[in-house]
Amino acid sequence: MNGFTYTFPDMATKQALLTSVSPPVVSSGNKVTVVGVGQVGMACAFSILTQHVSSEVALVDCVADKLQGEMLDLQHGSPFMKNAKIHASTDYAVTAGSRLCIVTAGARQREGESRLDLVQRNTDILKFIIPQLIKYSPNTILLIVSNPVDILTYVAWKLSGLPKHRVIGSGTNLDSSRFRFLMSQRLGVAPTSCHGWIIGEHGDSSVAVWSGINIAGVNLRKINPAIGTEEDPEQWSDLHKQVVQSAYEVIKLKGYTSWAIGLSVASLASAILNNTGRIHAVSVHVQGLHGINEDVYLSLPAVLGADGVSDVVKQSLTEDEMERLRKSAALMEEVQKNLQF
Amino acid sequence: MNGFTYTFPDMATKQALLTSVSPPVVSSGNKVTVVGVGQVGMACAFSILTQHVSSEVALVDCVADKLQGEMLDLQHGSPFMKNAKIHASTDYAVTAGSRLCIVTAGARQREGESRLDLVQRNTDILKFIIPQLIKYSPNTILLIVSNPVDILTYVAWKLSGLPKHRVIGSGTNLDSSRFRFLMSQRLGVAPTSCHGWIIGEHGDSSVAVWSGINIAGVNLRKINPAIGTEEDPEQWSDLHKQVVQSAYEVIKLKGYTSWAIGLSVASLASAILNNTGRIHAVSVHVQGLHGINEDVYLSLPAVLGADGVSDVVKQSLTEDEMERLRKSAALMEEVQKNLQF
Amino acid sequence: MNGFTYTFPDMATKQALLTSVSPPVVSSGNKVTVVGVGQVGMACAFSILTQHVSSEVALVDCVADKLQGEMLDLQHGSPFMKNAKIHASTDYAVTAGSRLCIVTAGARQREGESRLDLVQRNTDILKFIIPQLIKYSPNTILLIVSNPVDILTYVAWKLSGLPKHRVIGSGTNLDSSRFRFLMSQRLGVAPTSCHGWIIGEHGDSSVAVWSGINIAGVNLRKINPAIGTEEDPEQWSDLHKQVVQSAYEVIKLKGYTSWAIGLSVASLASAILNNTGRIHAVSVHVQGLHGINEDVYLSLPAVLGADGVSDVVKQSLTEDEMERLRKSAALMEEVQKNLQF
Amino acid sequence: MNGFTYTFPDMATKQALLTSVSPPVVSSGNKVTVVGVGQVGMACAFSILTQHVSSEVALVDCVADKLQGEMLDLQHGSPFMKNAKIHASTDYAVTAGSRLCIVTAGARQREGESRLDLVQRNTDILKFIIPQLIKYSPNTILLIVSNPVDILTYVAWKLSGLPKHRVIGSGTNLDSSRFRFLMSQRLGVAPTSCHGWIIGEHGDSSVAVWSGINIAGVNLRKINPAIGTEEDPEQWSDLHKQVVQSAYEVIKLKGYTSWAIGLSVASLASAILNNTGRIHAVSVHVQGLHGINEDVYLSLPAVLGADGVSDVVKQSLTEDEMERLRKSAALMEEVQKNLQF
Repeated sequence: MNGFTYTFPDMATKQALLTSVSPPVVSSGNKVTVVGVGQVGMACAFSILTQHVSSEVALVDCVADKLQGEMLDLQHGSPFMKNAKIHASTDYAVTAGSRLCIVTAGARQREGESRLDLVQRNTDILKFIIPQLIKYSPNTILLIVSNPVDILTYVAWKLSGLPKHRVIGSGTNLDSSRFRFLMSQRLGVAPTSCHGWIIGEHGDSSVAVWSGINIAGVNLRKINPAIGTEEDPEQWSDLHKQVVQSAYEVIKLKGYTSWAIGLSVASLASAILNNTGRIHAVSVHVQGLHGINEDVYLSLPAVLGADGVSDVVKQSLTEDEMERLRKSAALMEEVQKNLQF
Repeated sequence: MNGFTYTFPDMATKQALLTSVSPPVVSSGNKVTVVGVGQVGMACAFSILTQHVSSEVALVDCVADKLQGEMLDLQHGSPFMKNAKIHASTDYAVTAGSRLCIVTAGARQREGESRLDLVQRNTDILKFIIPQLIKYSPNTILLIVSNPVDILTYVAWKLSGLPKHRVIGSGTNLDSSRFRFLMSQRLGVAPTSCHGWIIGEHGDSSVAVWSGINIAGVNLRKINPAIGTEEDPEQWSDLHKQVVQSAYEVIKLKGYTSWAIGLSVASLASAILNNTGRIHAVSVHVQGLHGINEDVYLSLPAVLGADGVSDVVKQSLTEDEMERLRKSAALMEEVQKNLQF
Repeated sequence: MNGFTYTFPDMATKQALLTSVSPPVVSSGNKVTVVGVGQVGMACAFSILTQHVSSEVALVDCVADKLQGEMLDLQHGSPFMKNAKIHASTDYAVTAGSRLCIVTAGARQREGESRLDLVQRNTDILKFIIPQLIKYSPNTILLIVSNPVDILTYVAWKLSGLPKHRVIGSGTNLDSSRFRFLMSQRLGVAPTSCHGWIIGEHGDSSVAVWSGINIAGVNLRKINPAIGTEEDPEQWSDLHKQVVQSAYEVIKLKGYTSWAIGLSVASLASAILNNTGRIHAVSVHVQGLHGINEDVYLSLPAVLGADGVSDVVKQSLTEDEMERLRKSAALMEEVQKNLQF
Repeated sequence: MNGFTYTFPDMATKQALLTSVSPPVVSSGNKVTVVGVGQVGMACAFSILTQHVSSEVALVDCVADKLQGEMLDLQHGSPFMKNAKIHASTDYAVTAGSRLCIVTAGARQREGESRLDLVQRNTDILKFIIPQLIKYSPNTILLIVSNPVDILTYVAWKLSGLPKHRVIGSGTNLDSSRFRFLMSQRLGVAPTSCHGWIIGEHGDSSVAVWSGINIAGVNLRKINPAIGTEEDPEQWSDLHKQVVQSAYEVIKLKGYTSWAIGLSVASLASAILNNTGRIHAVSVHVQGLHGINEDVYLSLPAVLGADGVSDVVKQSLTEDEMERLRKSAALMEEVQKNLQF
């Protein structure tokens, strides 16, 4: 398999048809690499291609057959995707010149398995992947999706040698999306008009920032002061519980999660490639924020642009919310200490 | 599971937040149903949603768990899909009022299995599905994707009682796309600027219309008179062979095909829902065309609009090409005769 | 001029090329009418077409030459707009079956002219337009853009006989967009991540809802308690002043406003046609809200769907903000009293 | 006026809200400059922005007021255009780092005026513009839209010092689009399924390539051998006449052309920025093609990518068609000889 387009000897038909003016250019300037062609990686790639976030995607995986199958299947649909170019190879040379590298490789969360259990297995995988990506795209931005995402983003940052603003994790951008969808169901309002943020660890200990939840600037806590607490007769805290359960529930029902994480990642890619300055909850280096002293990554609302993270939003958190963040941070550090990399 | 959005008692928070002016409307007017949430059905639904072909998709399947898992996974991503609404149920009531119903249900082609082998199994499935769809959307358009698509489209037409222009099969729209991609690889030109048509049976006996293959109106046969024949030194006929092998190859490599068929179907849905009059190779009732006397469906270039097929293009085929179409037609009829429905 | 597509006798070439299966359907189901082909009307139509909000637009105006010129110019670009159909006529029959009718007709605001000065002139125009639109699309939604928009929306509602949720004005959706852009400039954050609402009269007496201004749920008033007041050392109130001045400034610089209002209207059309439930600040019937007793239209955040407005958001306004709304309402009523219609 | 975003002293509110991680990046990597903010230039910019071809557009013009008005009007709509960034200045520094520079400046064609009459006036304008563009974006691609486009593209090429594949004119891409629309009206088929090419001079002496006109690969000349000639009873040659008259007609009716040329240019920009290899009829250096010996630019179907033109399609032209091209070429050269630049 050759990851690049097939090459042909210059055929008579081609020569009779076309007068060459200049050699075709290889790259579009908006190339994105996706490492890992499992359900998550392919949902990322397909979301990016169908939404025209990039016109050039390179896929990498170690399973050559599966990889080539996915490449061909996408290529066969390229006439319906504005002629996007799809490359694939087990050799990282195919990723050269990527503006953004998305890492989805790694064992995936099994039914009932916690995200933390996956950590050493996936760290070992990153030890191979990250240096290869940096070798071929030294100025890339890394977006880590593999779980446990916060720790693996930290690991990727360390392995990459990149500045911290160029290494982020998909984090709680998806959790926030799930929360907004659930809000929309309760209120009969479009998800994008429901404003709520889930921060912290992408997983069981994530934090819903009840103080900021609003519709058209109307703080729901003003209407329902008990919102998010156990005292709330409407039990809005159930929404956060459902968010935490979401991944487990979807995995139980269909075996894995794919579409929502793919779309979430494509939204991050769009913010970065188009240099929009849009704010997303992504896993960033949080040392020094909200009283966190640990050298760890956790999700906070961050301003995304062509250089990765330009700013992190300092949300006004309650003491309890900060305490939970710090607890997550301590847990991350604890795990990181024992990692071999 | 309830296929529609969750309902909540009118909460105090909602009442304090919103003044009701009129009850929300259930339907968008562009509703699309997808029957079958396997890899093909989900690729269709996801392509339609991410490309904003429709803002409302209903999913139906008989496997309740998988169905709910897919619904939730899509819903969690709805903030990234312009707030599209996703419904799902094992009960066809969820499909009510669909402008287009896409049927992907059915056993899928296994490695090495011919499309024809699947036929009675999938006919039996249609006998249940089609009447349910018509019951809830009596004015819908049916788009059959299940294989063998030509025969199953015929079966669906018969079962539906709809006029023939409202029942089509996805047919060789995908084969044509694959052919254009392969042309683009040979010539270094975008797939959408490569014009070639694959017609006839979606499968082993499809026909490449070499007489019409062109780039910017330049007929390649004028440049290379032997094109498509065994005498051609450049062996362009290999492209057609690769197209025929494509499904087998992708299935062998990744286990199934999904992305390209999903995109192909979404392009048909777009042509129909937007009433564009675009021409696609789809499976239509061909009796009386190209000397075919059989009461069968085969793919020909057809003009698609809000009412399904308005016209079929009478391509200038060689006697050999027509002969091959007629052979396919005879084969279809032979199979259809023995079908129980 | 015939607003519909040219008709041709059935030519031999067409008959030799196409086999008719069923007559082509006239309508797409998502038809939008734009009345008035001045700079505003055309920016609305072009925004709707290029963003694929609708695939079918009908233009109406009383100036036949200009109208035909705009129709032809759009039609010549239809291959680049997914084959959208553009109709135009001085006869309202061309608008038949529209799901949404956008009224931009009317004398436009001149440099230095207040929006209220335009009112009787434009009311007289609506007296002709609205009954024609209702005649041909009795179930349409009316979206009024002509200025002064709040009063003219009221007038259109009265003239139409439609329920109030089906008649809205473009209102302060644009003012809110301008405000968010100015916020984004100050903060270096994307406009869509800047949350602020301008409500009330679209014009000199609009109200900035400082209590709800937030970034990622962080209420800026918590950070800067004086925000929006004269005491604020950072003078954020300048942003609101700039919003109010924006129309005057742009008119002074380029002679009229067009792009931003066109985009604003297209965003409303998208929310309606796709039944999204998205919240926009639009001119709605406000009697009974925020202590307003008058029978008038003013902008408030409203939930938009396929049936127009389903809900209005009850923002928590300060006494001063409500007082200013009531003052606007009284002013509207005063003007409305003297209108002849 | 400062073309870039407003700058603010670092406000306390911003500092309290955001923790800076890295300075925001100025450029998106897909920057497009539009020179000239008349109706054509603005239709180009607006088409590019609303279709998300680029997320960053710089406008330049010598009329500062109009320029600032257009910039503000677009900026006010940026929340509806995925947060696209719009810059503007009379100083070409604002264009720095553009991947594509579109030149629409120049006196526009008046009613009845031939495109050639404009030539020296607009050459003088290019003598100022082109060196400025090259100064700030030495590796840019130039896309000339000003008329007479073929001569001015030649002039721009000479002035720029760029290789010929990086300097193109919008040429007959628009004429071809108009032709396809007219075909679609005759046949009841979507414009994008109507294949026809107009080449040569963008203007009175353009050439319709009747030999290549086809629907789904069906050559219309096979059906109607007289097509395009005076003997044709269906007078298809009227379509070409209408195309030639189109600009004059639209200018007569509405005073100028804008939408179709804007969309045409955006389609070229998309092909280039996304490196698609799509074929468009654009003005290219034609010396040595079709027996043309002159050092001139004329439109031919060309393969467009990230480096401009990679190939030109050698269409099979009749002797008459080639003769007409050569006549245009001779005319161009005649005019060019007398130009001062």
